[in-house]
Amino acid sequence: MSRKILVLPGDGIGPEITAEAVKVLDVCRVQGLDVTLEEGLVGGAGYDAFGAPLPAATLDKARTADAVLLGAVGGPKWDGLEDIGKRPEQGLLGLRKELNLFGNLRPAILYPQLAEASSLKPEIVSGLDIMIVRELTGGIYFGQPRGIEERDGQRVGFNTYVYSEAEIERIGRVAFEMAGKRGNKLCSVDKANVLEVTMLWREVINRLAPEYPDVELSHMYVDNAAMQLVRAPKQFDVIVTGNMFGDILSDAAAMLTGSIGMLPSASLNEHGQGMYEPCHGSAPDIAGQGLANPLATILSVAMLLRYSLDENALALRIERAVGRVLDQGLRTADIAYPGTRQVTTAEMGDAVVTAF
Amino acid sequence: MSRKILVLPGDGIGPEITAEAVKVLDVCRVQGLDVTLEEGLVGGAGYDAFGAPLPAATLDKARTADAVLLGAVGGPKWDGLEDIGKRPEQGLLGLRKELNLFGNLRPAILYPQLAEASSLKPEIVSGLDIMIVRELTGGIYFGQPRGIEERDGQRVGFNTYVYSEAEIERIGRVAFEMAGKRGNKLCSVDKANVLEVTMLWREVINRLAPEYPDVELSHMYVDNAAMQLVRAPKQFDVIVTGNMFGDILSDAAAMLTGSIGMLPSASLNEHGQGMYEPCHGSAPDIAGQGLANPLATILSVAMLLRYSLDENALALRIERAVGRVLDQGLRTADIAYPGTRQVTTAEMGDAVVTAF
Ligand SMILES: CC(C)[C@H](C(=O)O)[C@@H](O)C(=O)O
Ligand SMILES: CC(C)[C@H](C(=O)O)[C@@H](O)C(=O)O
Repeated sequence: MSRKILVLPGDGIGPEITAEAVKVLDVCRVQGLDVTLEEGLVGGAGYDAFGAPLPAATLDKARTADAVLLGAVGGPKWDGLEDIGKRPEQGLLGLRKELNLFGNLRPAILYPQLAEASSLKPEIVSGLDIMIVRELTGGIYFGQPRGIEERDGQRVGFNTYVYSEAEIERIGRVAFEMAGKRGNKLCSVDKANVLEVTMLWREVINRLAPEYPDVELSHMYVDNAAMQLVRAPKQFDVIVTGNMFGDILSDAAAMLTGSIGMLPSASLNEHGQGMYEPCHGSAPDIAGQGLANPLATILSVAMLLRYSLDENALALRIERAVGRVLDQGLRTADIAYPGTRQVTTAEMGDAVVTAF
Repeated sequence: MSRKILVLPGDGIGPEITAEAVKVLDVCRVQGLDVTLEEGLVGGAGYDAFGAPLPAATLDKARTADAVLLGAVGGPKWDGLEDIGKRPEQGLLGLRKELNLFGNLRPAILYPQLAEASSLKPEIVSGLDIMIVRELTGGIYFGQPRGIEERDGQRVGFNTYVYSEAEIERIGRVAFEMAGKRGNKLCSVDKANVLEVTMLWREVINRLAPEYPDVELSHMYVDNAAMQLVRAPKQFDVIVTGNMFGDILSDAAAMLTGSIGMLPSASLNEHGQGMYEPCHGSAPDIAGQGLANPLATILSVAMLLRYSLDENALALRIERAVGRVLDQGLRTADIAYPGTRQVTTAEMGDAVVTAF
């Protein structure tokens, strides 16, 4: 039976980068991959068409898809929306929650061909290969109660950072298993010296450890983790943390590589159903100019094939093709430097197809 | 009338670094500074002596002091304490809360003499001079309700991230005023696309802006701020943010300089009463060996003189003396490299006194 991929271009550069990723999916189909593609609207595009960042039709399609490929959401056009529930980001958060995509995998890899792009010294980052496992459907992003209300004559804003043992355990397992497939080192990040919710986090992660005797587990406070990522990022293999700390640390880690336009991500539920998207945002300032880098989205297709469709061989072929176009010296504007050849978004996509 | 400074050496390297800072205070007294020094126990030292990380006697002395100079708290010896209320960190958090030290100033400055120490490329960090203004007595660190309890048959951990308009306004004013005395640029960091509490934060900061027409205000999401600190830190002048984001970002910013052993901090209340401490921790692994760098604590004395005692001339003399010992090539182990002369904690303190 043909498997279904839902493509959600979204906003800003989303449509142009997903178009290149679809070219790569098409060449996989020529190679025998049996998938059906559908399209849908999300984010600002969803709001403009249906008044909702996550239109019901999109959610329905997503539920029945084996995997979702998302471009990016958001832009200044919708920043002024008073009703936070209508903002583009809510399309993303809604998909994560509704599809129960609790396991967010965010690799931070330094491509040797792009070593120059990092703001860090080469010896600090060369060979960098970290996997951040971020919990994505709980924590302070979704905790209740939340809101802004009047108390004692002034307004007060509040959110709730909450995790249950079961939520911690399931993301912990994803992380231990990931570490077992990689360098066997797992660092769990919390603020257990101040926050009760992360004391429970640490306790549950510790409780899982004996089940994964090959994995060396350590714990780090989030402030120290932010420092260590800057000081000596290669000390890390897999990092596991909650939704908000993961948001912050994964962006810092991505930026260490200097090439955030290269980094894909996967968000998975317990059935292997997943949403795949580049780590970078919708970059409205460069949208429609052929300047965007489609490689993070193309590499997200590789993750999609690996994690949701179990097509590891095709995933590897995509990753190798990306390596080859970099070896050829082809660069979109964000990663170009003297001595390389600057190409457009579409030229980059075509080059990957050719190198496949 | 003689002003009072309470010295709290604390744990780990705390006693040896505060001893050097006291040498510098003593030379200021020789120069006519009229202060009385007292000592007290805090952190693990407080727990060992009185069973409490913030003994009542210490808090009483702190309340009547014009300023507190703190070394550092914490260490593996107390990590196993089951009762979180007894842990060394609670001494620090208790002092902040009881003295109402809501305004935490954390400079991240790259000393030209130490440019090599950064893990970032020289062109990215040379001349770096950021001031992070962190709210220190509110937010998720102190929010209620908090705890770990059983719900539906499993344990759940929870904390509350909460700010009132008044709390945001007073830290906002500190930050706008600080920016006005520096480069006139203020960046407020929040996660207003997801968290209601930070929507209120952004609203209140915006509301203050017209009162400070010379200061250029911008807003940034915390994940982006973590990236931008790695990518191009010199874009920042003053950053203002809440307690937890400030904890994470100030440590990342400090590490950009590569010399966290050089960075002081101040925590102030509305009356100018303050607590001053190095940004680094208690480093139990090197305690008692003469390896610790006393300069962050000595520079904290400079901040103390400037902000709590209004002795700017003496503060400048200390800062210049520190610059001179660096020029002389003197380095403690943490900042030593080939071609410099490695000195002990005490030798470094003596050198600053000599250069004063
Ligand atoms: C757009 C935003 C809601 C989102 C998040 O905070 O999770 C983004 O920053 C991300 O990391 O995917
Ligand atoms: C020790 C700890 C409680 C403290 C904090 O998180 O505030 C420390 O990290 C700091 O930044 O001063």
